[in-house]
Amino acid sequence: MTSRIDAIALDRADPLASFRDEFLVTDPAVIYLDGNSLGMTPARTVTRIHEVVTGEWASGLIGSWDRWLDMPQRVGDRLAPLIGAAPGEVVVHDSTTVNLYQLVHAALALRTDRTVIAIDAGEFPTDRYVVQGIADATGRTVRDGFVELGDVAVVVRSVVDYRTAAVVDVAAETARARAAGALVVWDLAHAAGVLAVDLGAAGAELAVGCSYKFLNGGPGAPGWSYVAAALQPHLRQPIWGWFAHVDQFAMGPTFAPRPDIGRLLLGTPSILALTAADEGIALSARAGILEISAKADALTAFALRLCDELGLATSTPRDPARRGGHVAVVHDDARTLVPALAARCVITDFREPDVIRIGCSPLTTRFTDVYDGLVLIAQLAADSSSSPADAGTDPAQR
Amino acid sequence: MTSRIDAIALDRADPLASFRDEFLVTDPAVIYLDGNSLGMTPARTVTRIHEVVTGEWASGLIGSWDRWLDMPQRVGDRLAPLIGAAPGEVVVHDSTTVNLYQLVHAALALRTDRTVIAIDAGEFPTDRYVVQGIADATGRTVRDGFVELGDVAVVVRSVVDYRTAAVVDVAAETARARAAGALVVWDLAHAAGVLAVDLGAAGAELAVGCSYKFLNGGPGAPGWSYVAAALQPHLRQPIWGWFAHVDQFAMGPTFAPRPDIGRLLLGTPSILALTAADEGIALSARAGILEISAKADALTAFALRLCDELGLATSTPRDPARRGGHVAVVHDDARTLVPALAARCVITDFREPDVIRIGCSPLTTRFTDVYDGLVLIAQLAADSSSSPADAGTDPAQR
Repeated sequence: MTSRIDAIALDRADPLASFRDEFLVTDPAVIYLDGNSLGMTPARTVTRIHEVVTGEWASGLIGSWDRWLDMPQRVGDRLAPLIGAAPGEVVVHDSTTVNLYQLVHAALALRTDRTVIAIDAGEFPTDRYVVQGIADATGRTVRDGFVELGDVAVVVRSVVDYRTAAVVDVAAETARARAAGALVVWDLAHAAGVLAVDLGAAGAELAVGCSYKFLNGGPGAPGWSYVAAALQPHLRQPIWGWFAHVDQFAMGPTFAPRPDIGRLLLGTPSILALTAADEGIALSARAGILEISAKADALTAFALRLCDELGLATSTPRDPARRGGHVAVVHDDARTLVPALAARCVITDFREPDVIRIGCSPLTTRFTDVYDGLVLIAQLAADSSSSPADAGTDPAQR
Repeated sequence: MTSRIDAIALDRADPLASFRDEFLVTDPAVIYLDGNSLGMTPARTVTRIHEVVTGEWASGLIGSWDRWLDMPQRVGDRLAPLIGAAPGEVVVHDSTTVNLYQLVHAALALRTDRTVIAIDAGEFPTDRYVVQGIADATGRTVRDGFVELGDVAVVVRSVVDYRTAAVVDVAAETARARAAGALVVWDLAHAAGVLAVDLGAAGAELAVGCSYKFLNGGPGAPGWSYVAAALQPHLRQPIWGWFAHVDQFAMGPTFAPRPDIGRLLLGTPSILALTAADEGIALSARAGILEISAKADALTAFALRLCDELGLATSTPRDPARRGGHVAVVHDDARTLVPALAARCVITDFREPDVIRIGCSPLTTRFTDVYDGLVLIAQLAADSSSSPADAGTDPAQR
């Protein structure tokens, strides 16, 4: 049986262990296993936001736009090596929902001879809703699943399943879609900053993602879009804003998009949100995506081993190459176990209908966190089976 | 002739003068006349952002979403009295460009029997570009101007002209459009927080605006949308995101929008951006829109009197009821005068082809700022006529 000293040994041997010191830990008693939903706060973000508010905004005033104007592209370039993109292929702005809306529309404009958009019925809700809305507005049909692609215009697909953490083979599925004449818009929301996705090597052309999960960019941090360089000049997206104009301050009568990734920009982007995203992304870039991904593998492997030993069921793949940065514990009482865990300082999250997600965020999660969290889950689950009414209401254990 | 002591007397008598102390002033030598482009930094924003980053994010972690989820609506309710809206009629999120895109699409969906979108050729660029993009995607026609509305589906129109500060009669033009069977989407970007627009009394149904100008919400602060309560249940916008879902965390298979203003929400909103917007809006709400509007009238009247006395041309209306919160000085050398002024610590901005904008932001602009700024403009303009090459390059005067 694995014991707590095994977890301690793994933490001591962890080459990324010191990165946790780069984050604010305000209550050491908290075991945070939800960095896959909202990443922790980099200490440097606190000082950098303060500098931007008091220096760049309060002192620099309107003149600071000289340095802010290209921030969506600069933060994009910082993110690029983490997802296998080249400089100039990524832009960070607005929300993932808006980014996805732009890219699905743009992809459809490149496949006007076809009317089907393929998406999985188990896909993350906002992706399905965005696709439904576009289909509704443009007379397209939504098809569930990816088996038949011969008449599909656009595939919308997550690299990492938000419940099970199952990973799709991006290169193989991009090639299969291309062979069938379909374009794929990849969603890396649950992949970026934890999995070594190499969009360039995979031949991926379009992708979106967020920066508030494993990239630690803060609550509601901006989304991002990736467009392969060769496709950029042909891309037309539907929301025509002045930040995308080739000569923005000429304020001319007619929209003419930039030739590059900047054509995806819309209105004035939030500089505070971009600043926090930049600091979070910078930490991951410093750690290196291969090192991050290796630690994610080790953490999730450790979690799966503990699940087996503790008798906890999981829907997360055993093959490390097919697994993202979290582990799904499946339990009938998941809905009540999650708040019961939180009442005991173990923070996870619940996903319908029966999943407790254990986030393994490589820069902040320790092996001891995974150990302590899963041991408590097993203990509460056992109590739950014997006494189903218990949901962390025992004051002695809070 | 007006003298500087007249300006000092006006500042001493100004009932809003103390509000300037609520803002960070890092260099008292700077005369900031660009609060109409980027408002100054409320001191409270600095502390509040710090609290949100270190408290709500770093300590509260994922649990803080309980208090963040309805922030777009709460900040909207704070803004509502400044624009004559009722609680529940305003939501703050994403950018003005995205908000406008949503509302123009939604308005078109209510007027499917008509194909014309009317917008002025002199309208703010992003508004024209958004309309061009929608027309391009949906087969609508864009018409320049508002003379003929008999076949118009949707009118897109700014309340305050971004160059001249000329103001449209919202009630009269809303009524005229309604009588002609057209819906108006009002743009209050240059009006909100400076002009006492009463959208409810005017019968306005749809409006958007930004919060980084007179509302002092920070660089790239979120935009906002207003939808009259009666219209909300009928409104369908095209970007279907999970924050608009009537049961967001059920993550069900099909999009079903909230019945209220929340149906305009998209993806996860930036909490840092919303926090800064909230603090800026709170200051304006505390000052009161009638008091703010009265001071804007007084500041712009003072500026126009000085323009006349100093021999500076202006395109801003003389009628205070037809004038927003800035004054447009028109000069052939405007393009070079603006950086020359900046080199001498007077911050204005340039708009094509020949406008120097003098922002009169009631919570931060003093009558002495307007006086000192316009006297320097007149002085540089006189130098410029005698020596056209001067553009603030004289080191002795920097």
